[in-house]
Parts: sequence; C-alpha cells; structure tokens
Amino acid sequence: MKRKICVVVTSRASYARVKSVLREVANHPGLELQLVVSASALLDRFGNAIQVIENDGFHPVARVYIIIEGENPTTMAKSTGLAIVELATVFENIKPDIVLTVADRFETMATAIAASYMNIPLAHIQGGEKSGSIDESVRHAVTKLAHLHFAATEESRERIIRMGENPAHVFLTGCPSLDILCGTDLSLESDILKKYGGVGPLLDFSKPYIVIMQHPVTTEYLSGRAQVKETLQAVYELDYQTAWLWPNVDAGSDEVSKGIRAFRENKNPSQIHFFKNFPPESYARLINNALCLAGNSSSGIREASFLGVPVVNIGTRQYGRERAENVIDVGYDANEIKKAIRKQIEHGKYPQSNLYGDGKAGKRIVAFLADSKINIQKKLAY
Amino acid sequence: MKRKICVVVTSRASYARVKSVLREVANHPGLELQLVVSASALLDRFGNAIQVIENDGFHPVARVYIIIEGENPTTMAKSTGLAIVELATVFENIKPDIVLTVADRFETMATAIAASYMNIPLAHIQGGEKSGSIDESVRHAVTKLAHLHFAATEESRERIIRMGENPAHVFLTGCPSLDILCGTDLSLESDILKKYGGVGPLLDFSKPYIVIMQHPVTTEYLSGRAQVKETLQAVYELDYQTAWLWPNVDAGSDEVSKGIRAFRENKNPSQIHFFKNFPPESYARLINNALCLAGNSSSGIREASFLGVPVVNIGTRQYGRERAENVIDVGYDANEIKKAIRKQIEHGKYPQSNLYGDGKAGKRIVAFLADSKINIQKKLAY
Amino acid sequence: MKRKICVVVTSRASYARVKSVLREVANHPGLELQLVVSASALLDRFGNAIQVIENDGFHPVARVYIIIEGENPTTMAKSTGLAIVELATVFENIKPDIVLTVADRFETMATAIAASYMNIPLAHIQGGEKSGSIDESVRHAVTKLAHLHFAATEESRERIIRMGENPAHVFLTGCPSLDILCGTDLSLESDILKKYGGVGPLLDFSKPYIVIMQHPVTTEYLSGRAQVKETLQAVYELDYQTAWLWPNVDAGSDEVSKGIRAFRENKNPSQIHFFKNFPPESYARLINNALCLAGNSSSGIREASFLGVPVVNIGTRQYGRERAENVIDVGYDANEIKKAIRKQIEHGKYPQSNLYGDGKAGKRIVAFLADSKINIQKKLAY
Amino acid sequence: MKRKICVVVTSRASYARVKSVLREVANHPGLELQLVVSASALLDRFGNAIQVIENDGFHPVARVYIIIEGENPTTMAKSTGLAIVELATVFENIKPDIVLTVADRFETMATAIAASYMNIPLAHIQGGEKSGSIDESVRHAVTKLAHLHFAATEESRERIIRMGENPAHVFLTGCPSLDILCGTDLSLESDILKKYGGVGPLLDFSKPYIVIMQHPVTTEYLSGRAQVKETLQAVYELDYQTAWLWPNVDAGSDEVSKGIRAFRENKNPSQIHFFKNFPPESYARLINNALCLAGNSSSGIREASFLGVPVVNIGTRQYGRERAENVIDVGYDANEIKKAIRKQIEHGKYPQSNLYGDGKAGKRIVAFLADSKINIQKKLAY
Repeated sequence: MKRKICVVVTSRASYARVKSVLREVANHPGLELQLVVSASALLDRFGNAIQVIENDGFHPVARVYIIIEGENPTTMAKSTGLAIVELATVFENIKPDIVLTVADRFETMATAIAASYMNIPLAHIQGGEKSGSIDESVRHAVTKLAHLHFAATEESRERIIRMGENPAHVFLTGCPSLDILCGTDLSLESDILKKYGGVGPLLDFSKPYIVIMQHPVTTEYLSGRAQVKETLQAVYELDYQTAWLWPNVDAGSDEVSKGIRAFRENKNPSQIHFFKNFPPESYARLINNALCLAGNSSSGIREASFLGVPVVNIGTRQYGRERAENVIDVGYDANEIKKAIRKQIEHGKYPQSNLYGDGKAGKRIVAFLADSKINIQKKLAY
Repeated sequence: MKRKICVVVTSRASYARVKSVLREVANHPGLELQLVVSASALLDRFGNAIQVIENDGFHPVARVYIIIEGENPTTMAKSTGLAIVELATVFENIKPDIVLTVADRFETMATAIAASYMNIPLAHIQGGEKSGSIDESVRHAVTKLAHLHFAATEESRERIIRMGENPAHVFLTGCPSLDILCGTDLSLESDILKKYGGVGPLLDFSKPYIVIMQHPVTTEYLSGRAQVKETLQAVYELDYQTAWLWPNVDAGSDEVSKGIRAFRENKNPSQIHFFKNFPPESYARLINNALCLAGNSSSGIREASFLGVPVVNIGTRQYGRERAENVIDVGYDANEIKKAIRKQIEHGKYPQSNLYGDGKAGKRIVAFLADSKINIQKKLAY
Repeated sequence: MKRKICVVVTSRASYARVKSVLREVANHPGLELQLVVSASALLDRFGNAIQVIENDGFHPVARVYIIIEGENPTTMAKSTGLAIVELATVFENIKPDIVLTVADRFETMATAIAASYMNIPLAHIQGGEKSGSIDESVRHAVTKLAHLHFAATEESRERIIRMGENPAHVFLTGCPSLDILCGTDLSLESDILKKYGGVGPLLDFSKPYIVIMQHPVTTEYLSGRAQVKETLQAVYELDYQTAWLWPNVDAGSDEVSKGIRAFRENKNPSQIHFFKNFPPESYARLINNALCLAGNSSSGIREASFLGVPVVNIGTRQYGRERAENVIDVGYDANEIKKAIRKQIEHGKYPQSNLYGDGKAGKRIVAFLADSKINIQKKLAY
Repeated sequence: MKRKICVVVTSRASYARVKSVLREVANHPGLELQLVVSASALLDRFGNAIQVIENDGFHPVARVYIIIEGENPTTMAKSTGLAIVELATVFENIKPDIVLTVADRFETMATAIAASYMNIPLAHIQGGEKSGSIDESVRHAVTKLAHLHFAATEESRERIIRMGENPAHVFLTGCPSLDILCGTDLSLESDILKKYGGVGPLLDFSKPYIVIMQHPVTTEYLSGRAQVKETLQAVYELDYQTAWLWPNVDAGSDEVSKGIRAFRENKNPSQIHFFKNFPPESYARLINNALCLAGNSSSGIREASFLGVPVVNIGTRQYGRERAENVIDVGYDANEIKKAIRKQIEHGKYPQSNLYGDGKAGKRIVAFLADSKINIQKKLAY
C-alpha cells in the first residue's frame, strides 16, 4: 500500500512553495499524491492558479471554495472555519496517511486543525521562521500541531526544538521554494505580457524594470491603503518600468487593492503594469531579471536571496525573518523606499546565498515523508 | 469606556473552570462581561449547562449551536470549523476588547482562532500544562496564539515561557476552577438525586459511594468502548454505590456512551446511577464526599488535589500533568483499577494541596484583564 | 457518455424509499449511479443506515456529516444550511447530470437548493402529496425547484400541475417505496432481534405484536414529549408485545426521545422493545406481520396500504395525505389511540391497495431519468 | 409587547425595494424593526450599501458576511447554505415574530428557509411574478414557504393563489420599491459624481445620458461575458454619455465584470462612467433623468414604468414579467440593442404606469404585518 500524501494548495504562492514536493511525491514509488486545490488558488481575481497547476500536469482530487468575501479580519476568521469544515469532509473521503502543509496562512491553519482532530499526521514546511503579521502566531501554532517539521534554515530548526518539539522529527531540509530555481532557465520570457495579461500600459521587458509585491499586514489592518500609497508614490517618482503583483486574499487586501485602483485612476501611471498571477518559474524569471524587488513578500527574503536579487523590504511583515545580504529594510515612507530602491539598483546583483536551501529540499522532504515513523500522540519535550 | 471581556462557555466543565472569573468580571467596575454560550453547554444530552448558567444569574449575549453530530474525529474537526465561522460573526457584532478562553478543547481552539484573526487580544487559562489526547497539541497551539497567559502552576508558567512567550505576559494566577471550592459549604447535598435526575437505581448518598468520570481519548479513537468496559467491570465488581458522569462530546464519546449503555442493558447494575450534569458547586460536593474519584478527568488532578480526594487516574489522558500525592495512575485494566480504587478507599482523604492554586485565581486574572497593556502583534522571544 | 445520476440518501427512511431506484440506475447501461450518504444515515444514534446500504452492495462516492446537534428548530435550519454548503462541494467534484431527491425532509430541501443554483436538473419523487408539519411547505417548495416530477398518485400528479409545473415533466410512476414489497418474501425474520439489537425486553415475534413509529411534528415543536406520552400510555395499557422504532432527527426528536426514555425509566415496560433501524425489507417484514402499525409515519399511509396492514394514524403529521381504507385517524389521546388500535386488531388485514403504486415505480422513474430532455430554465405554466 | 419584524437586507437593490417598509415598521407603534444586513450589502466591491443604510438612520442588529467567493453556480449554492447557518443563529438570538423577505435572490431563499424551519412566520414581497434565471424557480419556492404574500400586481396575486396559497393571506399591496419615487424630488443631483465616485471619465450630467445595468443570467452561466460584450459594443457605438452600474454578486457576475474590465482596457471608452452603488433615491433620480435605461434589471420593468423612463430590456432575465408600455425587448445583439435604444431616445418619456403600484405599498404591507393572524402550519389549498 502506498502512503497517501495529501497536499492542500491554496494560492499561487503556496503552489510555488511546494511544487517540487508535489513532483517528488508523484514520482515516488511508495507514495500517492492527493492534491486538493482551494481558496484563492481557485479564484480568477487572484490569478486562477488552478490553471497553472493543471497545465503542470497535476490532477486535483478535490476543489473546495472557502473564501468568504470581505477581506477583513472577520471574514479571514470565517474563511478559516469554513475551510476546516470542508477539508474535514474531503479528508474523510480520501483518507490521507499524511497531510502536508506549508508556511503560515489561514488556510495552513485550517489544514492543520482538520488533520489534527482527525488523527492524521501533519507535516509542516517553513516552521520555526519569524515574521510580523498574524502569520507569526499562526506559524508557531501550526508547529505545535505538526508531527514532522521540515525547516528551511538551521536557526528555524533550532527554534522549533526550543519550542518543545521532538528533535527526532525536526529536519533541516532547506526550503522547497528554491528547488524550482535550480536547473531551470531563468532568463526572461520574452512573451511574458502576452502570456500573463494583466492591466496597465505595456512594458518592454528587454529594458530595465523593477518588481513590486506588497501584501496587507493583517495586524495593521486598515493601514494597508496608506502603506501601499507610499510605495506607489515612490515607484511613480522613480519612473522605472514596473511589474506590480496583486496582493494575497487577506484581511486588508481589499484596502491595498483600493489604494492601487485609486492611484491608477488618478495618476494613470504610464510605467506600471499590474499582474495577477504567474506560474512559479515565470515569477522566478521575472524577479531574477529585475533591477530590484520591493515590497513585503517573503519571496524577497527567500527566493531572492538565492537568486541574488536586490530587495527593498518594506515595513513589519517580514520582521525577524533571517536575511541574506541582499535585503535593505525600510519603513512605510515614500522617500525611504525610493532611496533604498535606487541604492539597490546601483548595487546590482548579490552573490547567491544558500541560507534558505540548496535547491534539493523537495527530495529530502519526500524521503522523510516516505520513511518516517509517526506517533499520533504528541508530547511536549519538557 | 469599560473593557469588554468576552468569555465563550462551551460545556459544564468549562463553566466550572471560569465561573469565578465570570463573577469577578461582572463585578469589576472597569469591565463588561460578554458571555457566549455554545457547544455542549446548550445540549440536553450533555446536561444543558445553560440552565445552570442562567440560574446563576448570568445572561448570555448569544447562544451558538456548533456541534456537528457524529462524535468522531471528522465531526470534531468540523465542529471546530463551524464554531470559528459563527464565533467570528458573534465577535463582529459584539466587538470584545479581550477574548478569554480556557484549557484545550476544540471549542477553545475555535475561540482562539476567531479572536486571533480578528485582531482581538486573546487571554488563556490553563496553558503550559501537559496531558495526553489531542488536547496536548491544542493547548500549546493556543498558547502560541494567546497574548495573556494565566498559568495554574509554576511549572506551567515556565513551560509557556520556554515555548517563547513574552514572560511579561505570563502570569502565575493559580487555576480558577479551585476558587469555587473556597468559601463554599462542601458538605453533600441531600437532595442531589432529586435535583439532578439521571438514570439508574436510586443511591443513598448518606452512605459511602465512589464517583466515575471517564472521557474518550481522541488520539485513541475507537478504543473508548474497550477502555470504559474495563472501568465498568471494575466498578461492577467493587460493588460500591457509584455516581457515574456522562462523557464530554468528543471524538469517541459515542463509543464510550455505547459501552455504558450496553453494560446497563446486560448487567442492569444495581449500584450505579448515571448523571449528565451538575452545577460546579454540586460537582465539588459530590467528589468532596466520595470515597474515591476514578476515571481520566482533569478534575481528578486539579480540584481533587485541593480537596484531598483520593483519585485513581486511568490511562493516558492526563499523561504528564502535574500531580499532587492524591493520585494513583493505572492502565486500562479492570483488575488494576479495582485494586487501586480499593487502595485509595483504604487510604482515605489526603491533605489539601495548593499545587493548582489557592482559590484566588479569579481575582488575579481579572486584575490582569483590567490592566494589561497588550500589543496585538506577537513576537517569539528567541 | 453515461448520464450521471446523483442520489443523496440521508436516513433509513429515504433509503427505503429509493432503494429500487438506486438498483435500477446501477443496472441501467446508460446511467451511472453517484450515491452520496449523509445526515442521520451516517449516525449510530439513528441506526447507522450506511451499513445497510453498503451491505446491499452500494458504494457511496462521498459521506457528508451535516447534522448540527440540538434537534430543535434552530439546528434543523442550520443543518439544512450546512448540507447545502457541503453538497455543493460534492456536486462540484462529481459533476452529476441529474440530482434525484425524495420527499420533503430538510435534507431534501438542501439537495434541491444545491442542485438548483448549480444548474443541475433536479428530479423529485413524492411531490404533490399533502401532509402536516413543515414537510408540507418544503415538499411544495421543492416541486417549484424540480425539473422532473415522479408522482406517486394521480391526485399528486394533478396537484403538481395545478401548482404550475409543465405537465410534460410530471410523471405518474407510483411510489418506489412499494417496489421492495414486491417479489420479496415478507414472512417474518425469525432472528430479527439477533440481527437488529435494540434495547428493552426480548420479544417473541412468533406471537402477536404491534409496531409503533412516532416522529415529532416540527410545527408543533415542544409538544412532542406530551404527544408521545399519550401513545406510550396507550401501548402500555394495551399490553401487547410492541416493536417501537426510534424517531427521525428533526426539531423535536430529542423531546420525543426524552419522553420515551423517561417512560422506560419509570415504567420499565416489559413488552416494549426499541429499535433504531432496519434494512427496508426487514422493516417491511416487521410491519407486514404486525397486528397493527400505529404512530405518524408516512409508511403507515404508503407501504401499509399496499400490504393491507391496519394502521392507526396519530395527530396532524399526515394531515391531508391520501389514504386507503387501512387507516384510522386519531388525535393525541391515549384512550382514542387504545380504542383505535383495538379496533384495527379486531379488523385484521385489509386488502392490498394500489393507491401509491404497483411495485414498478423504480423502473418507470429510471426510464424517464435516462431519456428525458430537460431545459434548465423553468417557467411557470400560467 | 411589540411584534418584532425582522428584515434581512442583502444588497443595494433589496434595500431600495424595502426602504419604505423599514421606515413604516420603525414608525409603527406596535412593531419593532430588527434589521439584519448581510451579503453584498456589506461588501465594498458591491457598493457598501451598509453605509447608505446607516446614513438613512437605520441601526442593524447584526451584520453577517455570507458571500463565498467565486461568483459561480457552486459558490452561489454555498453562499445560500452559509447564509442559512448564520441567519438561524441570528434569529435564535433576536427571536423575531415575523421575518420579511423580498423577491427571489439566493439570500431571499436563505432567509425563507431559516425562518421556515424555525417556525417563524414568513412574509414575502414580490411573489407571483415571472422572470427568467434561477430567480424564477426560487421566487415560487419562496411563495410555497411564505405565510403572508404581498403581491405587487393583480396578476401576481392571482398566480400566488393558483399555486395553492390561502387567498386570505395574499394581499395586493403594490411594490414598495415605488414608494420612494413618490414625494421625493426626482430632479438630478448635480453632485452625483462627487458623491458616488466610480471609475472612468467624468460625465456632465446636465447633458443627455443613458443608464446601463446588466446582470448575469445564472441559468446562462458562462454566457455573461459574451452577452455584456454586445451591450458594451452597442453603447460604445451609440456614443452617448453613459452611467453604467456594476452587476449583482451572482453566478456569472465575475464573467460580466471581466467583460467590462477587458472592454475598458481595450477601448478606454471616453463616455462611460462605472458606478458601484447608489442610495435608492439617487438611483431613482439617475434613471428618471436618463434618455433611456438599458440592460436586464427588474428596475427597468418596475420603477421605470412608474417613472415613464424608456427602457430597452435585453435577453431572458425578465422573461414573462408584466410590462407597461415603456419597455422594448431585444436579444443579446449589439445592433438590435443600438437600434432599440435609439428608438427609445427618440420616443422620450412615457406616461406614468401604476402597474406595479401607487407608491403606498409600504403602508399597506406594514398594516398587514401588524394585524395578520398567522397559522404556522401551512396547507395547500387544493
């Protein structure tokens, strides 16, 4: 009997993070992949990641709509609850042997809780890292529910153990989000606009450009619009070609979106094109060839460090997360942001960092998934 | 403006644990109590605790049915999800300043998640303790979501801090479940049968009796029936008058109930009376005057230590929880259980232990609820 | 491509009603059966019909827990809502061509609404009949949502058409619940007690017995306990051997159950055995060999008319439903009930009535399911 | 004791329809208004009607987010289910004496089902009308659940009675959506753009303009984009100033929105301004002063007939609904639409029609709400 590994993919970002793991599970003779696609990965407004997933040859066993509209703290909580209700039914019907979840989003929490109460061993990628936002609390709470921990960095591994997890089940694997950066041609796709549409003036990607990706910070809800305005102003004044990526579906993303829309209406910026979604590899190509990546995405800390892309990290969302030397931190201030982006453009590419892994995390994770003995009853180590 | 303190009471047990806190909040000039009653506290099958609550003079701002029937791991997960969906709506409409939750049940988790995503500071009672069952994981996960921690014991306090919580927000208050044991007349109610009904032969409580309370262990789901059979057999053979309390609504409680029902049908035991629910004080009187309390309820570790009641703790559910000297641990084995109960009856009462508090936890907790400054953004301490 | 026919079975009763249809769909070369099992059909407390279903060789494509505990009007509404949420996800993933639903329960309504909004043609069995309880409103509302109507009686067919349905899609098929009564040996199973357990004193089914089945009337919520007490009293005084079947999970069933339990505790009746569930054929055997069937189940009107079993119908639940001559109607009054049962016992068996069909409904229904052209846009006929 | 009348307002449109009723209930000495605001009435993306409602001086007793994102048939069904779950909890806590619901949307259905199972009498406005889309089925299903029927037209009243409702509870009141058209100054607001924002080029409302409002037809899901393209093309070619209103949140609205967005990106139309929401009176002023209203909104049939506004009704959504002479019907064809709009502009205003009422419906409805005796048990009339 193959071990059934269920992975719940809920957004473009979570897909990028686990794609190499999905591939390895699917190819492993002792494992069966049960892919569930849910949340914003099903929504056109957030880029319809399901199409990318299916184009990559994965066949979901279930699709589950769980986002309750509102993009505020209340609906974020409710979406978590609805996801638990529905994922429990899915798990009941597909009976996974292990559920694998990634990072720290509300869908991660929902997956973790459904699996935990159903006595299904839970494996967790990216535990032990630090950040701001509610993600910080959720990530560590998921650690307390998980049976297998796949840490991206040595420090993360140590933190997971300090929190009381059994060291025998905390593995330093590196982050699988880097795996797709290895062995892939990361030169820019010439037809990126044709393939991924978006709105706004056409850009010439053969010429220099920067990339922006700024999410709401849920614990600073209602500040999102003011925060993004600073970034918009900075980018507008810098007047570089800019590929701007739409935010996640979180409390406050509606505010961020409104800020962006209002700016577009007022300023009609001639150099900024807005994208909703990319396949993981295309996103990697996009940032790999950018002069600079700015915003507050964890990809600026993680993938960009491996690629050596200069990054300007804005605000508190990545607070405390380990950084390579490619990152400059700034506050929510147009001038600061502008200066830092200029500085990073002048600096140019950084050397590759292996802080978050060496591109082989997927293989290591899947080996542990295939072989680990798991006791469903967890015990605090102290 | 008064600080609004929302407490979600979900069962007879959770009510007993926080009753003193509810009273203190209601009486505090700077606080307003928002009592939500939900889950098995609304269900007749589990003793209709809502009536006790209202008889005590508390007026719920909302009642929320969230138990999805099945009493198995799947419905336990689903009930958690449904509780989050609904509690979020309640919180949206009553806008608490702090949400207070207790212990480690699925409703605790639901409350914690709804509050967390809604940026409402979360206060948690009974964090840092150890046990078996899924409760063990859930308790520590709730700690990672909570902003204020009210630990019952010094060891618990230390564990919470070791898990990375800010020591400035981890308070040693003792457990409020002991508060109702102080200053209450704990002699037996003579009319206990008349008041609380139940099924089975009438007992004469002026004569010696024992008390049994055995819950399912969710991580040992499907063993519940076999486990309770051993206890039933032991009790049957001991042939003492026995007050048996119905189990919680958890995965496996249906199995436990079936075990009990089958036993009643087959053996028609002449000395065992089955109860569904007691007000906290009556439960305290019941165990205070018992020869012995056996089963796996945390009240055997907690309230019974304070009362000096001899306890036989069966199986893994209280694994690792700090014990006073009043507890003998045994496995799921009728003979072991029988011998241990006999030994405890011979021993008789133990001296009072203050391991879990001194009866003044409620006052301390409420003082911290009234005065604490809380930063909604949590940060791991290391 | 086969037409995919999805049937949602939600209780022992709904299974009995559609079993012949399930069989015919499964055997039809142009159809594929998608069986979903949900609601009380999954619950041990209501007889675990899922086991009967699987023993009959049917393999559900999904199991969905949707009963929210409380058995009151609020939880009945909420269970309907939860069922819609979850059935929509199931339909999304199995993509039926037609959804078939039966009768008038809240799960029927949930199935109808999920299918309707998802543009899946809806077929309905037992439309156009009259009764009391909320079922009366729900049945006609489902008619207004359905595309194909399979009426059990000529009068029902006419009512459906009078309500504005397209006569071309209203078929007089007879009721499939009668199909299992044909070509089945309906002599009593000698091992009925061994096979179906239940609680209460053992009965000797080779000797005369009566059968009772009394459900709550949702629109008379809170009267259920008083109502059942009358029946219990009548049965107790009659002092025949009695097979009593547990009520449905509806608003008020908890009240009915409590009435039964209290009666058992007080009177310890020596002639009444309580059953939870039977396979359809065993239920047919049970009533076929009974002296009399009393209560308010529609089977007293429907199956019993075909079998010629004398029936005492109590109260308003079957108000207005067409009757054959085998039925005496009485109010909620112990004396009336007692007298009527005695009268029916004296009368003995009635001749077979074909009012509700001839035992071939399943075949007719499946032929229409296979061949009907359906326009998803409904239009009122006037 | 006042009769508590609960009204669930779920969108800008449903608010406009019942505003006069809300006002009359609030002012009636024997009635208490319990206003619940839910669904798209809470969503910024659909115009944040809650602000208009609160500005009008109404204070909701509860806000309930229930829209599950996706805007497809599956999420429409799921939103219905979620709404039932949550409205049941609201009703449980506010205990209305009558629930009043309007028209035929999925939220109407959800409200009707929650009330029905909870034995709360249901009053329904706009029953008995005919249309296309799933609304057609839902409207009649709600009629079968409702206890009081407030019909807008004589024909509607007759249809409700033909469907088997008790004539004593079917009242011809006229439609309350017309009430706000009486005694209100319907000259154009000069500052409409300043007050209601929107996106697109500024219009000069002192000069001639047309209004467009085109919703998805749920039973023609996936055609919405193609359908709206025809209208967009027609409007673009006509080259009048155009106020375009965003569609409802229904299955297919995302498609309609995408069609609109793509058109804006490609054509950058210089004469079309897009609005999200208006207070009812402002919407009335907007259409009252327009050359022509085109699309498929029921307001083209209803309010516009009273105002004598020339209307071009496109496609099947209003199929069968009674029309005054102000309506020209066309198919989904740019040329047809263009020609019809031109014809209507040439024609100019029509005389006022009282087909849908005389502006006093609210008063009549509230009198019946205050005085009607209601039997919770419904009975089909034949």
